[in-house]
Amino acid sequence: MNGAESLIRTAAAAGVTVCFANPGTTEMPLVAALDAVEEMRAVLGLFEGVCTGAADGYARMADKPAMTLLHLGPGFANGIANLHNARRAHSPVVNVIGDHATWHQAADAPLASDIVSLAKPVSGWIRAARSAKSLARDMADAIAAAGRMPGQVATLIVPSDCQWENADRAAPPIAPSAVPAPPGDAIDASAEAIRRDGAKTAMLLGGLALRERGLRAAAKIAASSGCALICETFPARIERGVGLPAVARLPYFPEQAVEMLAKFQTIVLAGAREPVAFFGYPNLPSRLLPKGCSVVTLATPEQDAVAGLEALVDACGASRSSGVAPPLNRPALPRGPLNAFTIAQTIAALMPEGAIVMDEAATTGFAFFDVAAAASRHTCLTLTGGAIGQGLPCTTGAAIACPDRRVIAFQADGSAMYTIQALWTQAREGLNATTLLCNNRSYRILQVELQRAGVVEPGRKARSLTELSSPDLDFVRLSRSMGVPAVRVETAEALADKLRRALSEPGPQLIEMML
Amino acid sequence: MNGAESLIRTAAAAGVTVCFANPGTTEMPLVAALDAVEEMRAVLGLFEGVCTGAADGYARMADKPAMTLLHLGPGFANGIANLHNARRAHSPVVNVIGDHATWHQAADAPLASDIVSLAKPVSGWIRAARSAKSLARDMADAIAAAGRMPGQVATLIVPSDCQWENADRAAPPIAPSAVPAPPGDAIDASAEAIRRDGAKTAMLLGGLALRERGLRAAAKIAASSGCALICETFPARIERGVGLPAVARLPYFPEQAVEMLAKFQTIVLAGAREPVAFFGYPNLPSRLLPKGCSVVTLATPEQDAVAGLEALVDACGASRSSGVAPPLNRPALPRGPLNAFTIAQTIAALMPEGAIVMDEAATTGFAFFDVAAAASRHTCLTLTGGAIGQGLPCTTGAAIACPDRRVIAFQADGSAMYTIQALWTQAREGLNATTLLCNNRSYRILQVELQRAGVVEPGRKARSLTELSSPDLDFVRLSRSMGVPAVRVETAEALADKLRRALSEPGPQLIEMML
Repeated sequence: MNGAESLIRTAAAAGVTVCFANPGTTEMPLVAALDAVEEMRAVLGLFEGVCTGAADGYARMADKPAMTLLHLGPGFANGIANLHNARRAHSPVVNVIGDHATWHQAADAPLASDIVSLAKPVSGWIRAARSAKSLARDMADAIAAAGRMPGQVATLIVPSDCQWENADRAAPPIAPSAVPAPPGDAIDASAEAIRRDGAKTAMLLGGLALRERGLRAAAKIAASSGCALICETFPARIERGVGLPAVARLPYFPEQAVEMLAKFQTIVLAGAREPVAFFGYPNLPSRLLPKGCSVVTLATPEQDAVAGLEALVDACGASRSSGVAPPLNRPALPRGPLNAFTIAQTIAALMPEGAIVMDEAATTGFAFFDVAAAASRHTCLTLTGGAIGQGLPCTTGAAIACPDRRVIAFQADGSAMYTIQALWTQAREGLNATTLLCNNRSYRILQVELQRAGVVEPGRKARSLTELSSPDLDFVRLSRSMGVPAVRVETAEALADKLRRALSEPGPQLIEMML
Repeated sequence: MNGAESLIRTAAAAGVTVCFANPGTTEMPLVAALDAVEEMRAVLGLFEGVCTGAADGYARMADKPAMTLLHLGPGFANGIANLHNARRAHSPVVNVIGDHATWHQAADAPLASDIVSLAKPVSGWIRAARSAKSLARDMADAIAAAGRMPGQVATLIVPSDCQWENADRAAPPIAPSAVPAPPGDAIDASAEAIRRDGAKTAMLLGGLALRERGLRAAAKIAASSGCALICETFPARIERGVGLPAVARLPYFPEQAVEMLAKFQTIVLAGAREPVAFFGYPNLPSRLLPKGCSVVTLATPEQDAVAGLEALVDACGASRSSGVAPPLNRPALPRGPLNAFTIAQTIAALMPEGAIVMDEAATTGFAFFDVAAAASRHTCLTLTGGAIGQGLPCTTGAAIACPDRRVIAFQADGSAMYTIQALWTQAREGLNATTLLCNNRSYRILQVELQRAGVVEPGRKARSLTELSSPDLDFVRLSRSMGVPAVRVETAEALADKLRRALSEPGPQLIEMML
């Protein structure tokens, strides 16, 4: 067995069984090794940002890492933006990057670059392999590192000679380290704050606190104490819909977030960080909490927030509370023109139980969260790091992780164009992914931001940089060119008709919604 | 005037008049400032790799930098691969990257990341601006740094408050530093080596030595001494065609390069580095020169290779030599199926005088260099850094730099998919860019490399990672979806017909060539 095969066997033994790949010459032994290991699935992306975004989406849904296989520094660089999102989502991802043979690195060949410097900003763990014989152990370490709570990106750089030279065997998986529970005084301090400030307390939920168990515990505390439940603006994953307690979402713009938070005297953080503004604006704060608001940390993102919440239920004497979960409330199907509300209502009305909704719809997406609160049970994934181009790749990975669930990419046009190649992978893999493409022919959020920056009448160039027109993009043609069937709709009625059909058929489809 | 306007005015004053932009919220004051400065052209790319590749192509043809305008770390990261190519091409490029306001950086907001670490591997110069008042000077420094011989990538990180706060004025351009001439003893040593080893000497030409003056001087030396002329495998830019001396191209695969170089006792480097293998392979060397071959440096890439060659003409007593330049020799139009030869012959037969050919055709491109050697005068641009996805963006930038010349993107299918969004910019800007898309439904070079790695019968997964099929890509639809008219051809005759027509009409077109 060569080093490459020892690496792939080590991955499979640790349960890493999907490889999102865009390989090149320096990864050929690893490509060959994929065929030697039956359990490993190989999924080709036509651009590395598809691979890394898919690995992120896979990890969010499978709660375990996929591996990526990328080609030296420039290939890796193409995947950085979605690894940035994965880092902010605390997704476990294992990058395997091929590099020049150890003895060829001094030659500074055309594709050589400083891969470590590129990898550092997105990786919690980085190693450059030194020999074929230690490669299996390197991979086992990378997988263990990726899984360390709350999950992180681990990057292993593998020179090509370490792949093709002889190795001994695969390495056994490294047992995951236990997730630390929050300390007892964090529970006590949270309970005391909630007792003291009651309805003037908000719990800010993030990470695993937004899964079913965490939400149910939080709802009991809220029902017994009157405290508010708020989730991060951009959760990596949140369970939602009928039977689950609804939480408010912290608004995106700092003015609105400040307004929502103004009445609270205490914020209890459960798996979330203290909230900050997404961007800095003149005369607006970085920190969003009101002056004098005390911050109590129940659980950091590195700790077991669910255990913390369940301990807090007991400490608050809320174990007999039933929590509050709204009954099924699917919106009626709307009529008329397409806009953020009619689209949200249509999706919420038609999405099947267990749907996964990847929301990168930007300005068209804002209504969906509230409209769908009590629709069928579903999972929402959001743009955690603000690096657009996440939606279609993340959808791809989620659909591979959950082949029995429907994945809906609720997708803005501008963002879609960053990683549009993901559609091809969806077609090749026959994924049950439905893209709802919001075509408003603009980077609308930037037009809003221009206004916020005081540019009331944008000039010709400012307009040209925020409009996706001249020429218009034709997403139906674009989608079909990559093998994904597509239709265009102009009304809510047509959307409902086409969406119902798309959700009833296997494989990917795209519906271009003209706004 | 605010900091943003002082930056744009400084750029315009220094002759930097094109901005390839994909901005976001942190760049809004710079977007507004573009409208305040008439001389600055703003060109939107739908993906940052389009912007950076276009800036590279622009610089190669205009011999001065364009600026890019990019959105924080992740936006910049999307442009790294083509900046890697620009770095290897020694192209002057000025990146302006917006960042969070200085006072917001401590908040570690979702889009925050270590931009400097990302920028280092591709940038010869990096600075993070500190205040609005010093921003103009920062930009003048960045432009001067980019232009320092032999050209490099300069990256200026601009927090948003430095853009929106008050500044004083634009900064005057910084006079370029003189390009150092090669020292006299380099001329003497080169002349002595050529006299001594005659036909057993090869001059390896790179950088500015591949422009007309450099080639003419080199040809005189070759005609009088019998030495061989070889150019780098992947020159940033080379002038070619009737009236210009032909040079041999160093082959891509190391076996072939070693074979070509085996007979030489001396290599004289004129603007080129000592040749090394593109990749390391088992039992093949990093260095390509034969044992005992002496290496004489006439001019490093940082020195004035043209001055060096012209001085060497005198030192060799070759000033009366006329050099050797072949007469016009356009191939006849071929018939029959499309392959590397019939495509090369068709392009060489039909391309107009002054055409610019951006070659990212990979395995389909290898025949063109020789076939077109004595065709109409043209300029070739190649994939300098090996980071695929350069062709369409570089074509875009070259067409903006040279609106009166025809630019032909000779383009592989797999590589095209990395930055296919460039077609939209070509349509919007109405560029005279013709894409000849080689559709062989595979990463053919990787299939070759698999064979070279000893995988004679690739398994199912290895095949799936090197085939661009299931589904096939439809580049005609893809191109039309972004506003670029497109047709598909299956024969050399049809290609000639469609190419002739495309070259006679204004604006971009794409011809999908089915191999």
